[in-house]
Amino acid sequence: MHIAMNTFAARGYNNASLAEIADRAGLTQAGVLHYFRSKALLLTSVLELRDQSGIEQLGAGRPQGLAFLRHLVDTALRNAEREGIVRLYAVLSAESVTDDHPAQDYFRDRYDGLRAFVADALREACELPDEDTETAENAANAVIAVMDGLQVQWLLAPGSVDMAASTDLVVTALLTSLAPHRFGPDGEIRPGG
Amino acid sequence: MHIAMNTFAARGYNNASLAEIADRAGLTQAGVLHYFRSKALLLTSVLELRDQSGIEQLGAGRPQGLAFLRHLVDTALRNAEREGIVRLYAVLSAESVTDDHPAQDYFRDRYDGLRAFVADALREACELPDEDTETAENAANAVIAVMDGLQVQWLLAPGSVDMAASTDLVVTALLTSLAPHRFGPDGEIRPGG
Repeated sequence: MHIAMNTFAARGYNNASLAEIADRAGLTQAGVLHYFRSKALLLTSVLELRDQSGIEQLGAGRPQGLAFLRHLVDTALRNAEREGIVRLYAVLSAESVTDDHPAQDYFRDRYDGLRAFVADALREACELPDEDTETAENAANAVIAVMDGLQVQWLLAPGSVDMAASTDLVVTALLTSLAPHRFGPDGEIRPGG
Repeated sequence: MHIAMNTFAARGYNNASLAEIADRAGLTQAGVLHYFRSKALLLTSVLELRDQSGIEQLGAGRPQGLAFLRHLVDTALRNAEREGIVRLYAVLSAESVTDDHPAQDYFRDRYDGLRAFVADALREACELPDEDTETAENAANAVIAVMDGLQVQWLLAPGSVDMAASTDLVVTALLTSLAPHRFGPDGEIRPGG
């Protein structure tokens, strides 16, 4: 499975061939198809595996509010140690917008779920009124976007991009901007805030 | 050329075939190769054309400082009217991190150039000390990243993503965070700031 993951990361889904994956795994193409039925289903399995090694454990034990936002910065820090998974995600998420891509629904659902989680965390951390869904969702999309966009830049020029520092700058700036009564200019919680 | 652009946007570079591009253009494959020599050179021409229709006119008339940062928000607004170019850019920039991709140098250079422009604009707008290159570059990478990341989300779910509003939130929050003496909580320039 890691061979398939690495091949999709190195070539993209469309350009990866089952023959190459089978060859690198020491299997025949028929052997791979016996287990996974199709290249698209192999991709699904790879994405599920990636979720387990995953950036956001979306289960019940997930940190909430401010802790979740800080966890995203930690994730950016850890991602700098896992180039393969970052590349897989960066390549496939963007490729998913091409015509008839088999991971399109996967990424659409994933962003929907993430948006809701991050928006909830921002609402909780900043004590935003429940009816102000627009600000929370726009800020949530921005937080997710900065993490994604940094990955592509970092893959191209790791020495020029500090994913954790840039993510932290944005999260901290948004907290202070959305809740100046709660967060000081460096993101520190104000006394009594 | 627009046919090649649309085909690369719809399929990615690796998965686009010269035969399909030629067919849609009413040419033979030999005819396309006569003009462009190779699929990789055709890609280069498409990227140059895209730069002309371009998000950032990097010439001398480019707005400076705060005006440049506001221009990026306008760009995000205009991008919501040009799905084709956004898709081309989102797909190719991420695909460029795959092995031996012919646009890898193009995107590496492009991010280097953009990083320098945005960092300069932030330094000027926020009156950051020249020696504080790290903060300006981390913030610049974040601004570029948020614009890129939003494009993928928007392509997958245009109704759930307001690229301009999310970009504006981040630019405004960063300005206030980097230069609280100059910018108020809504990004307005403070009197005398």
